[in-house]
Amino acid sequence: MFYFYNMIKIIILGAGNIGTHLFRNFNSSKKTEVVQWYNRSLDSINQYKKEVPVTNQIKELKKADVYLLALSDDTIPKIAKQLKHLKGVIAHTAGSVPMSVLNESDNYGVIYPLQTFSKNRDVNFENIPICIEANNETSYQTLFELASALGNNTNKINSEQRLNLHTAAVFVNNFTNHLYHLGDMICKEQNISFNLLQPLIKETAAKIENMTPKDAQTGPALRNDKNTLQKHQDQFPDPDIKNLYLYLTESIQKNNEQSKL
Amino acid sequence: MFYFYNMIKIIILGAGNIGTHLFRNFNSSKKTEVVQWYNRSLDSINQYKKEVPVTNQIKELKKADVYLLALSDDTIPKIAKQLKHLKGVIAHTAGSVPMSVLNESDNYGVIYPLQTFSKNRDVNFENIPICIEANNETSYQTLFELASALGNNTNKINSEQRLNLHTAAVFVNNFTNHLYHLGDMICKEQNISFNLLQPLIKETAAKIENMTPKDAQTGPALRNDKNTLQKHQDQFPDPDIKNLYLYLTESIQKNNEQSKL
Repeated sequence: MFYFYNMIKIIILGAGNIGTHLFRNFNSSKKTEVVQWYNRSLDSINQYKKEVPVTNQIKELKKADVYLLALSDDTIPKIAKQLKHLKGVIAHTAGSVPMSVLNESDNYGVIYPLQTFSKNRDVNFENIPICIEANNETSYQTLFELASALGNNTNKINSEQRLNLHTAAVFVNNFTNHLYHLGDMICKEQNISFNLLQPLIKETAAKIENMTPKDAQTGPALRNDKNTLQKHQDQFPDPDIKNLYLYLTESIQKNNEQSKL
Repeated sequence: MFYFYNMIKIIILGAGNIGTHLFRNFNSSKKTEVVQWYNRSLDSINQYKKEVPVTNQIKELKKADVYLLALSDDTIPKIAKQLKHLKGVIAHTAGSVPMSVLNESDNYGVIYPLQTFSKNRDVNFENIPICIEANNETSYQTLFELASALGNNTNKINSEQRLNLHTAAVFVNNFTNHLYHLGDMICKEQNISFNLLQPLIKETAAKIENMTPKDAQTGPALRNDKNTLQKHQDQFPDPDIKNLYLYLTESIQKNNEQSKL
């Protein structure tokens, strides 16, 4: 096997959704070498041991250029403490955790891929914005090269911006997906296929590539079409869904009023 | 110019977003002939008078196979009353208006294209689900042929189903687009480009082609990650957005609890 002279050696810690996707992508990249994969439990990584040395012992960690902490938010500071003696950049991948939790190390930073990951769904990293932050120029350069092994969409983003991006991501992903789910529930009750809504969902997402979401808005809330709003509300057997409908309608109308001022 | 023997002659009434898109598509279809376009005000349709005879007088309406009422919900019954003496199928295009408002005519129905329309954005009708309802088999057949001139995704949907589909469409389109807008606002406050969220938005919409929205859900609300939820809430300068965040989080958690029972 041919290695690039400057192949970046990394160790991935964690085997959740992000850890697993990062392993697959870094392991197949010619610019990076995954020298080890750590997880608290070996069960989830044992199946990969023909491809990469695996361990569940922090004290067995090898030498690497980057230790990538793809761990739950609470676990990151605990593991980081145990790594502070190591050379190499310590980096986490979390949206809502400030870089400063790693500050007992000499070189540290964050590589945050802004995407939704499910274990059994492949994701093309080429298009994913990778948000990078580092405590010094050397660490930044290393993390930048690492991110570039995944794709070309690298962005310098500080901890406060990243937390806000993560919040915005909750709106456009988790909350949006929940609205899809409520749409699905409404269809099920009426014996209609959810597939009828798919072209609309796609077009809604596609529209804002060329328009601001504000300009793309349509519908009874924006028009304050009281008759239709009432008809819709009368449909809901579940008071919680009705309240959510009212709340989101009000929010659209408030935003519209504010922008007229 | 060569006409099909059985080209369907239609008159479009209304020149809003849907009326205009329908005119463009029917006018370029070989299966339909738009014999006239009516609008209350000629201002918005005068620019098309080289392509189609235009009028603002109901009493000047010509003979046609279908009179297509692409009008606001309130206007539909008023105009329909004035058309009751006409031969030809009277059909409206609204999601929330029952077919029965047209029942003074002999032949009537609904052609409801389930999509979001903005005047300056082209839409490919080929993929749009067209929901059809009619008062008898002859009317249904005519409307089915008309819908087939637009695309291949025709569906028999009754008034109650259509109203519910329209409600579901508000969730997956209007409300979802509003969440995009709130994401955009968060980015603006932090001087981050909204483009960073585009791949996430696309993937969120793409994911549910192969998974149910329920299975696609991820994030701090689903995990009940109290630490992150709190960090996010602490970010909002606007109490309304904070409340919306809390409400949607609660709704995700409630749905998740219910499905465990």
